[in-house]
Amino acid sequence: MGIVAAEQYVERLKGMKPNIYVRGEQIGRDHPLLTKSINTVRVTFDAAEDPRFKDLVVTQSPLINEPINRFTNLHFRQEDLTNKLTKIRTLCHQVGGCIQRCMATDTLNALAVVSKDIDDAKGTDYHKRFLEFAKYYQKNDLVGSAAVTDSKGDRSKRPHEQADPDLYVRVVERKKDGIIVRGAKANITMGPYVDEQLVITTRSLTKEESDWAVAFAIPADADGLKIITRLADTRDRRELKAPYNQFGVAESVLIFDDVFVPWERVFMCGEWEFAGKLALTFANFHRHSYCGCKPAVSDIIMGAAAMAADYNGVGNASHIKDEIVEVTVIAELAYAAGIASSVQATKTSSGIFAPDPIYSNCGRYITGVNVYHEFDILTAIMGGWPATMPYEEDWVHPETRAFMEKYAMRNPNVSPENQHRLWRFLSDYTTSAMAAWNLHAGVHGGGSPVMEKIGIRAAYDMEARKNVVKHLAGIDGASE
Amino acid sequence: MGIVAAEQYVERLKGMKPNIYVRGEQIGRDHPLLTKSINTVRVTFDAAEDPRFKDLVVTQSPLINEPINRFTNLHFRQEDLTNKLTKIRTLCHQVGGCIQRCMATDTLNALAVVSKDIDDAKGTDYHKRFLEFAKYYQKNDLVGSAAVTDSKGDRSKRPHEQADPDLYVRVVERKKDGIIVRGAKANITMGPYVDEQLVITTRSLTKEESDWAVAFAIPADADGLKIITRLADTRDRRELKAPYNQFGVAESVLIFDDVFVPWERVFMCGEWEFAGKLALTFANFHRHSYCGCKPAVSDIIMGAAAMAADYNGVGNASHIKDEIVEVTVIAELAYAAGIASSVQATKTSSGIFAPDPIYSNCGRYITGVNVYHEFDILTAIMGGWPATMPYEEDWVHPETRAFMEKYAMRNPNVSPENQHRLWRFLSDYTTSAMAAWNLHAGVHGGGSPVMEKIGIRAAYDMEARKNVVKHLAGIDGASE
Amino acid sequence: MGIVAAEQYVERLKGMKPNIYVRGEQIGRDHPLLTKSINTVRVTFDAAEDPRFKDLVVTQSPLINEPINRFTNLHFRQEDLTNKLTKIRTLCHQVGGCIQRCMATDTLNALAVVSKDIDDAKGTDYHKRFLEFAKYYQKNDLVGSAAVTDSKGDRSKRPHEQADPDLYVRVVERKKDGIIVRGAKANITMGPYVDEQLVITTRSLTKEESDWAVAFAIPADADGLKIITRLADTRDRRELKAPYNQFGVAESVLIFDDVFVPWERVFMCGEWEFAGKLALTFANFHRHSYCGCKPAVSDIIMGAAAMAADYNGVGNASHIKDEIVEVTVIAELAYAAGIASSVQATKTSSGIFAPDPIYSNCGRYITGVNVYHEFDILTAIMGGWPATMPYEEDWVHPETRAFMEKYAMRNPNVSPENQHRLWRFLSDYTTSAMAAWNLHAGVHGGGSPVMEKIGIRAAYDMEARKNVVKHLAGIDGASE
Amino acid sequence: MGIVAAEQYVERLKGMKPNIYVRGEQIGRDHPLLTKSINTVRVTFDAAEDPRFKDLVVTQSPLINEPINRFTNLHFRQEDLTNKLTKIRTLCHQVGGCIQRCMATDTLNALAVVSKDIDDAKGTDYHKRFLEFAKYYQKNDLVGSAAVTDSKGDRSKRPHEQADPDLYVRVVERKKDGIIVRGAKANITMGPYVDEQLVITTRSLTKEESDWAVAFAIPADADGLKIITRLADTRDRRELKAPYNQFGVAESVLIFDDVFVPWERVFMCGEWEFAGKLALTFANFHRHSYCGCKPAVSDIIMGAAAMAADYNGVGNASHIKDEIVEVTVIAELAYAAGIASSVQATKTSSGIFAPDPIYSNCGRYITGVNVYHEFDILTAIMGGWPATMPYEEDWVHPETRAFMEKYAMRNPNVSPENQHRLWRFLSDYTTSAMAAWNLHAGVHGGGSPVMEKIGIRAAYDMEARKNVVKHLAGIDGASE
Repeated sequence: MGIVAAEQYVERLKGMKPNIYVRGEQIGRDHPLLTKSINTVRVTFDAAEDPRFKDLVVTQSPLINEPINRFTNLHFRQEDLTNKLTKIRTLCHQVGGCIQRCMATDTLNALAVVSKDIDDAKGTDYHKRFLEFAKYYQKNDLVGSAAVTDSKGDRSKRPHEQADPDLYVRVVERKKDGIIVRGAKANITMGPYVDEQLVITTRSLTKEESDWAVAFAIPADADGLKIITRLADTRDRRELKAPYNQFGVAESVLIFDDVFVPWERVFMCGEWEFAGKLALTFANFHRHSYCGCKPAVSDIIMGAAAMAADYNGVGNASHIKDEIVEVTVIAELAYAAGIASSVQATKTSSGIFAPDPIYSNCGRYITGVNVYHEFDILTAIMGGWPATMPYEEDWVHPETRAFMEKYAMRNPNVSPENQHRLWRFLSDYTTSAMAAWNLHAGVHGGGSPVMEKIGIRAAYDMEARKNVVKHLAGIDGASE
Repeated sequence: MGIVAAEQYVERLKGMKPNIYVRGEQIGRDHPLLTKSINTVRVTFDAAEDPRFKDLVVTQSPLINEPINRFTNLHFRQEDLTNKLTKIRTLCHQVGGCIQRCMATDTLNALAVVSKDIDDAKGTDYHKRFLEFAKYYQKNDLVGSAAVTDSKGDRSKRPHEQADPDLYVRVVERKKDGIIVRGAKANITMGPYVDEQLVITTRSLTKEESDWAVAFAIPADADGLKIITRLADTRDRRELKAPYNQFGVAESVLIFDDVFVPWERVFMCGEWEFAGKLALTFANFHRHSYCGCKPAVSDIIMGAAAMAADYNGVGNASHIKDEIVEVTVIAELAYAAGIASSVQATKTSSGIFAPDPIYSNCGRYITGVNVYHEFDILTAIMGGWPATMPYEEDWVHPETRAFMEKYAMRNPNVSPENQHRLWRFLSDYTTSAMAAWNLHAGVHGGGSPVMEKIGIRAAYDMEARKNVVKHLAGIDGASE
Repeated sequence: MGIVAAEQYVERLKGMKPNIYVRGEQIGRDHPLLTKSINTVRVTFDAAEDPRFKDLVVTQSPLINEPINRFTNLHFRQEDLTNKLTKIRTLCHQVGGCIQRCMATDTLNALAVVSKDIDDAKGTDYHKRFLEFAKYYQKNDLVGSAAVTDSKGDRSKRPHEQADPDLYVRVVERKKDGIIVRGAKANITMGPYVDEQLVITTRSLTKEESDWAVAFAIPADADGLKIITRLADTRDRRELKAPYNQFGVAESVLIFDDVFVPWERVFMCGEWEFAGKLALTFANFHRHSYCGCKPAVSDIIMGAAAMAADYNGVGNASHIKDEIVEVTVIAELAYAAGIASSVQATKTSSGIFAPDPIYSNCGRYITGVNVYHEFDILTAIMGGWPATMPYEEDWVHPETRAFMEKYAMRNPNVSPENQHRLWRFLSDYTTSAMAAWNLHAGVHGGGSPVMEKIGIRAAYDMEARKNVVKHLAGIDGASE
Repeated sequence: MGIVAAEQYVERLKGMKPNIYVRGEQIGRDHPLLTKSINTVRVTFDAAEDPRFKDLVVTQSPLINEPINRFTNLHFRQEDLTNKLTKIRTLCHQVGGCIQRCMATDTLNALAVVSKDIDDAKGTDYHKRFLEFAKYYQKNDLVGSAAVTDSKGDRSKRPHEQADPDLYVRVVERKKDGIIVRGAKANITMGPYVDEQLVITTRSLTKEESDWAVAFAIPADADGLKIITRLADTRDRRELKAPYNQFGVAESVLIFDDVFVPWERVFMCGEWEFAGKLALTFANFHRHSYCGCKPAVSDIIMGAAAMAADYNGVGNASHIKDEIVEVTVIAELAYAAGIASSVQATKTSSGIFAPDPIYSNCGRYITGVNVYHEFDILTAIMGGWPATMPYEEDWVHPETRAFMEKYAMRNPNVSPENQHRLWRFLSDYTTSAMAAWNLHAGVHGGGSPVMEKIGIRAAYDMEARKNVVKHLAGIDGASE
């Protein structure tokens, strides 16, 4: 059945070849550096067995007719989309940020939609191949990445114009049993702790760029694949253990050093006309996911700001409540966009429901342009202490502990430990490597605000709005 | 049946007593000063017979089992709420702004909900009375106002603390057959051209304020009622007639100079505990309506900006497209909030579906804080010409016409007349009394942004967000 | 001497030929339609004799060695620039907005600077001619326009690419005694009530565009010149007279229908290399002026908001004070930019001090992007009443007066008349034609925000900033 | 003479008692953990001998009639204020952020002003004592902190209402030769590497709070003083050394565990009426300093964004240039406010020139509300790479180096090393502990935006603005 225990996932990782490079070391997937990141993904497995979350996380798959984890789900039912939002928002609360595993959910759904579109247009059989892969993925409750962004080289030039053709991942050889690919995918979240790298196109292509039109799935330890990794972990704690500090995330460059992919795992190869469609379809699903996860980030920010105000004794100050509700508005408008995007979804040729792209883009956009603003509000309300408070070690040092506890006191109804816990959390949440990751991913993940604007413009019927004005102004469109 | 022709509405108005005061005159409802405002309401009747709009505007009433105009509808079906949004956005396009008639739709639905709540709590029979009134209203396809805002006096004081008790409308006498009310309602849209003034409370009240807890319906020409009116019309045109310039709106102060209301038209009288609920329920329905009408205003703004750029020959300039899409985002986030508010509606004791207040408030809020910003974007894109271009009369004057046509030319593919039509529309749309009305109503109509923030805060579960933070920080809520 | 009485200015206007077209009529300068606009300019003359303002307004001219009105001053002393700011801010307070007469001050200074530059480069004698004209202008205390903006046609095309070459003003004939010019200048403030139209280039030009490189001064009633005018007046009052309602402004299209300009009044003719310099130099002086006048507008907005809050009884509400101080910040940053621009001015070849363009542009920019925002703040604070309050006539009508006075009461310490005066002022200030003019001129006057950004970029040393980063990052610029 | 070499400063530090606590250790000032912070201060000494900076940094002291380092200067000349701005902006460029040493400059000037005010009012001799201390400070070219912010406890309560009286620093005993003080100062920059802790009041006090009205100077290793420290260093580099990565800063809690201060170093003791004045005067000088340093931060941000765009090959994209100039505007408006604040400075009773507080507050405010926005712009332009790029170690690892260099290439005109250098700098600048420090200090340093608003409101003549409106509206202030 399509639900496995977290331990099985961890065991699978341990069995892989050590093709990961971090801080100058080559490591395997049992290395402590990866523990926090893997902890995050474990939450998605544990939730399937947790009575609080089970109904949110487990669903029946129409594809394999078995219960599956929703993170492996294909959205053949419209309500899958609203359910996805609730699931994401809830689980992000558990880990204090990105739950990560939607990367693959969204890639799989995009591949399902576009492989069918290609087949419809070209008579190929990518969709059938893909569905076989999807069944395997669901049955084994796999974890995958979304390897989308190429290294891209000179941003003013197209793929085929680059000084080095490998700056976008491409097919360098077509063989009887498969293809050889070369290039790199950058900014790839979860690279070292997935089962499968799911590789798709990052942009529209032209006819002369058909070698760059390639999509496929490949085991994460495939020959020729190198995963060069940077971590964004929460801070370690000595004594003051807290759930938040168990989690982390990793970003990687995936190097495809002439990697072989068998045909049954190739879902696009040469159909340049669909490269842009695939990128946009993934973006649409993924921005829809952001309408669930970014409100969870805002929930943390507003909850943290409200608690900081309470602990400072000024929870009822009107200017503070006023700023906190601004975060609420951002969160709920994004979530509302997710709901609207879901209920106005379109059934594609594959049977998959695709979110309305105007709303998914608007929802992602408002979070992208506001994440710095939201952290600004939190910083303004919580004051400077989280950035200047002494280290945890000095809270336990015999010569300084009493002073720390004495002088950190604010609202006298809160215990010194809870005071310490809150401000330490705020410090970790706003000044650690994870804080920087949240800000940067908040802007760029799933596409920067400028990309959402392009997405909105592309999907929007501006002519209809011009026609409203022509009507009102008495302009006869025909005579113009 | 509950659908009548626009002419019948106009005839009803003509039959009323002349209790309207404008510019120092006392006038009847056939006075030309009211023509443009009445034209706007006519559109709602005409739409019921227009094949383009009929399906949007006509529905079957579960109350009278007849087709009715949706503007008289009570929302016993969840889909009534999403339908309302579409209807409003579409008809606002026809008149270039506020379609006005939702004032009463929202008041009626609020009265339906709260009269039932009072009966449930107090054993009164307001709801039955109200449903009788609602049947009468639907059968005759009536037009009503939302007489909510009291004159309010000193804003730092409660109703019973004011120097003059009449500064909030109140019951001054309870008689066998009805009540006598005194006071004034200010900022009342549509006052002089409705059939019925629908009067409800504007705020929460305390026990000593039970005389101010009053809601009722009264014919617009009732004895003792004076309607002092200010117009916000579009500009008149001489030769260059255009649909936009046919429409207008009026705001009034309604003076209740000891007006008698028979008991069958009284829907609250003394139940101060429900005064705030009634005000908030109306606000919720009305802010939900704004999620439909304000996107229509944004549609006009973005369409107008896009056309101005086209006519100037710079429709493809990236900074212009970039600013226009900001208006799109505002419009669609508000509309998405309307959709989310509809699909997450709650069925009340009365059977009426009430929109989710968090989303209705967020949707209204984002439009309220952005209306000036949207006009700013339009102004920036269209340039100064709409504010400085000579009068229409100088476009037809024999000595100046040729010069105007010569020097107004921009994109050579657009005829001089269409150039003139567009810029004249932009001038009227952004510099007339109607422009000012749009800006002010855009901020304050249905409640100012500060009121929506209060509405959001009241409905929002901030404790749940604090609990997320407590969980992450390892704070045991119980021990705090 | 260079100071004349307002009456002399009005007499001069009366003596001119009636070449003004308004609302389909051809009128002279004694027509009542122009009264309010002329009233505004009168204030600049009266101030020279008013003990409160005399020191601000009168200075000794180094050019004619006589006292002059500063509005005719050439800035040969650095302190002239800071004095200009104070003078403008103070007099704008008197008329409730634009004092207008700086249009010419800034054009004259730009002509002084650039005519000298041309002479330096080309050996021409424009500067000498110009100084003669300036002496005449100062001695007679004249009033001039800034006729800068051409009609411009298709904005994506250069002057010489337009379908009609006249879409930018150009020299059509060079004669022995002067030149013939044709074209139109649009959005020209003060057109019908100046002594002199001061005509300069609006943009940079190329070699093939030397016919468009022309600058000159011409009496406002010159043969062939037609002034097609649109008014932006304050509202008329019946009984409740107020200083604000005496003032107005007019915008015009100036039609140059083959107008002859004698050589002694021509200050550029063919020197296309200096066309952009002239436009930018004017823009610099004029944006510096805006650093004085726009803070005056903000002063009115913040003062009005503060009074509205007082009259409503909520002057101490923290969210209101908080929003008002945002207007203060905008005003004072703009004014600070004006001061910085003055103290860092550069002495040009002509001896004139030119403001620092980075600061003049930054100051103008912050006001341009905020004017809608400032009116939004005012609207939010004052509430809806100014947009809905009945007409003045209904305040004096015997049947409604008592009701208006009763129900308009707020703070009981303020008399009914003063209540009426304040809200009537707010209504006029925010909903009249003058309000629209303030918003549009606030964005576009002296150049739209996008033009200031271009101005800043052109003048800014971004390489120096890149070098700071290269230093910090250890990048050797030479090896790059 | 008042200029010493950096080595002398470092030697002085080495001679102090080890009263510093970091990460659970008690350390002396020669500990490597402090090296980067001390490096920053060294720059201020080195600059006095560097031909590029000498004129900016060295001035003649009117107090000791010797050349001194401007960081020890008292501003007896108006031009000292503008010179301070230029010096700060320039030296901040050298260290890539806060130059730190103005902390003491501003505290000293505030003490000079207010000690004289106290003497004027009370006949005390604080000012004389202070001047003696200042001479000693200048002659030895000392380094001091600004120990202002108390731990403050419950923010809704005043000092004397706190559960623990020590939550604000206070005098616990007055002795013949001095006083004993107890309490803590939090968020104290530079604590472990100054010669002198300069301690002043943080807020206004009431009569019953005279024990909290205390200001003094004390050697940094005084008995009873404990410095509990947290570092905010730039990231260490392995091979890719860069100037930026040499610098750091430290924040501390200073614990005054019954510290003795001799009378000659006490500059306020009990004069509660001047506690607020001292806090505000320091804030005014310090916010004036921010008008110099924050533009330097903006310089780095805009230069970095411009270089990222260049290196990506999109330096000319219009939307990128447009966003960069927004940073320019913020920087230059803040700097302009600094200039205006300087030229409109007031000479105090002490002879010191105090900046105009409206402009110093406006300048600080605009940077405080924009620092997150500026980093957002940088993040948006530079893309996700700085947050996801592999560690430096993987750039030198033999198995991955070639891949990193190959796939990191963008603009082919930039060498791989310089590509690496820029993106590594951007990564360090935006994702390290120092980045978090910059954001938090950018909001709170010298007072949060809400404090500047209070400062502006306190100093601003709003009545004058109301009077402008009364004049325009015809409201007779006297009759109101």
